[in-house]
Amino acid sequence: MSEAPRALEKLNIRRPTLVLDRARAVRNIERMAARASSAGVALRPHFKTHQSLGVGRWFRDVGVSAITVSSVAMAHYFAGDGWTDITVAFPVNLRELDDIAALAERVRLGVLVDSRDAAQAVGRRMGAPLRVWLKIDTGYGRAGVAWDDGARITAVAGDILGAASLEFAGILSYNGLTYRERTAEGVRRVHDEALEKLRSVRELLVSRGAVACAVSIGDTPGASLAEDFAGVDELRPGNFVFYDLTQVGTGSCASDDIAAAVACPVVGIYPERGRVLLYGGAVHLSAESMESEDGRVIFGQASRAWPGGAGPFAPVVSVFQEHGVLEADAQWAAGLRLGDLVCVLPVHSCMACNLYTEYVTLDGERLGTIHKAREA
Amino acid sequence: MSEAPRALEKLNIRRPTLVLDRARAVRNIERMAARASSAGVALRPHFKTHQSLGVGRWFRDVGVSAITVSSVAMAHYFAGDGWTDITVAFPVNLRELDDIAALAERVRLGVLVDSRDAAQAVGRRMGAPLRVWLKIDTGYGRAGVAWDDGARITAVAGDILGAASLEFAGILSYNGLTYRERTAEGVRRVHDEALEKLRSVRELLVSRGAVACAVSIGDTPGASLAEDFAGVDELRPGNFVFYDLTQVGTGSCASDDIAAAVACPVVGIYPERGRVLLYGGAVHLSAESMESEDGRVIFGQASRAWPGGAGPFAPVVSVFQEHGVLEADAQWAAGLRLGDLVCVLPVHSCMACNLYTEYVTLDGERLGTIHKAREA
Repeated sequence: MSEAPRALEKLNIRRPTLVLDRARAVRNIERMAARASSAGVALRPHFKTHQSLGVGRWFRDVGVSAITVSSVAMAHYFAGDGWTDITVAFPVNLRELDDIAALAERVRLGVLVDSRDAAQAVGRRMGAPLRVWLKIDTGYGRAGVAWDDGARITAVAGDILGAASLEFAGILSYNGLTYRERTAEGVRRVHDEALEKLRSVRELLVSRGAVACAVSIGDTPGASLAEDFAGVDELRPGNFVFYDLTQVGTGSCASDDIAAAVACPVVGIYPERGRVLLYGGAVHLSAESMESEDGRVIFGQASRAWPGGAGPFAPVVSVFQEHGVLEADAQWAAGLRLGDLVCVLPVHSCMACNLYTEYVTLDGERLGTIHKAREA
Repeated sequence: MSEAPRALEKLNIRRPTLVLDRARAVRNIERMAARASSAGVALRPHFKTHQSLGVGRWFRDVGVSAITVSSVAMAHYFAGDGWTDITVAFPVNLRELDDIAALAERVRLGVLVDSRDAAQAVGRRMGAPLRVWLKIDTGYGRAGVAWDDGARITAVAGDILGAASLEFAGILSYNGLTYRERTAEGVRRVHDEALEKLRSVRELLVSRGAVACAVSIGDTPGASLAEDFAGVDELRPGNFVFYDLTQVGTGSCASDDIAAAVACPVVGIYPERGRVLLYGGAVHLSAESMESEDGRVIFGQASRAWPGGAGPFAPVVSVFQEHGVLEADAQWAAGLRLGDLVCVLPVHSCMACNLYTEYVTLDGERLGTIHKAREA
């Protein structure tokens, strides 16, 4: 029970714990800030990945002053720590108009709409000025007005422009298609295609009288790898602060950039079937899976060396509510004992982080999350 | 924004909310209690599904006095509400021996081991008497000593029997293989095969001097459908309290037995591509998926009538952190408006419930969960 990497030993971990490597996270933030700066675009990082005031302060220390969140509750949470420029990058929920109106009294708030019904409902309800983005779909198919539906684009924009309490911010898009790529070249191509579409939408709106029409884009692969940001005004990546195995797969980061891992106690060792059982399941890692390089479905990669080094890895081949099963060869498992800690790099850090009320840094600092705050 | 089913209208739901149909849940509990009673076995329901003191009291009202949990923290939580007979059905975590010892001073506590190392470590640490189950693997391959490894079984049992502070409770198994079946006959066959193996293990242990050797089994499909419980002393199903789409798939329940759903506001309607967007994603439903009857991967089934009726359904075909995408035909979506509520039946209710700090019943009662309590 003493084989934990030295950096973990002093953290007194008894149960699955989300551990952050602060130095790596800050390096990731600084790199992204430098990319945005050299491209001449504003960085408005998405805080849905960490959902933590403490991690938010790491961004503030690097000079970030405007943020993105994915829910009104999250906007309220960060507003409480002095953030005053917040975009809720989620189609406006008409059941929360009162909350939105209250928050707009306190901070410079942005929301997004993709229909005339939503634009009109928001326009009717708001007293304080509210920035409204028109959500555009460049092909991902999740939310937004289709980029080539000029009639609807101008109609929704017209509703925003025509409402006294609303400020038309511009067009906002999320290009999730970059996640399907496996090379930097592929990510850049998909990024460039979407950007070309957004430029045409902006041209249309400017030609119809929208004097100011900013362009906001958001995915971590594009933000990490693209070279062309011409016409882009702001970047909203989120995942890059911690990265994860999915981002390694897109080529957006290296394994050594991953700044979040779940430390899990070993509760079973079965050399006869090449398995190790972890206290660390779907309620600690999430049930998100991905294909590994050899085409298998995995739920994480376990390392006995993290954060000292990335590998070697034993894949998490199945998860249950509290259990995680590793496929571990004799070499990986050599000397392993019940009660040892291993660190699992997550498939999707946003989803793993969402399962915790607090994180622990390698320095032993405990950082509460929104899930802690909402019950305090 | 007024199309919510009448039962939901008065709940004042603004965000994704886990709604419980208490009458159905109590009916599910009563049915399982009746099944156990008529089979002559004790019911020790698994509380990992709901993780809520309030729901626990529904079981108490039906006469349940002994429970199962999946973590030491969960055992402490329920002990705080007067539960005095608790089994932690998870391989003992040596990093929590102090917590286990403290709890064993307060309640009749059971834990499980599947190795000599674990049995000996527990034996060395415990002061207060602790009941220890020997975990047996009948073929599922997750945890446990293989049912046909007689040498190891007798060695681990010997370690338990030889430790002064430990009480050998018997053998405990979890037959997750029943989840792969799609008919009652299939579930019964798989159940019966595992039971035969457990009987042989018990015979072996009794022949080696284990005077008392109870047999404890646990899966909801087997508990819901099996007819042969000869030789079984206790049943530990958990999911049955709420059931879910996975259980409908195994034939263990009907859609109308599902007692938990996530009420989600509609935030996008896209008839041109047959999609409806919900405020309700992987942080509200979990990322658990299943194959629907027509072979597609789905993350839930959305109903506009629940709890008034089950269908018709629109499948959740993708989930993101906060978004859920429905494939909805014109008939299903007829008259739907932004802000309406739809109820999503979960793929796996245990995993969906784990994402909430409280549930709301159709009567408007709010029931806190362990995630609320641990931050209070």
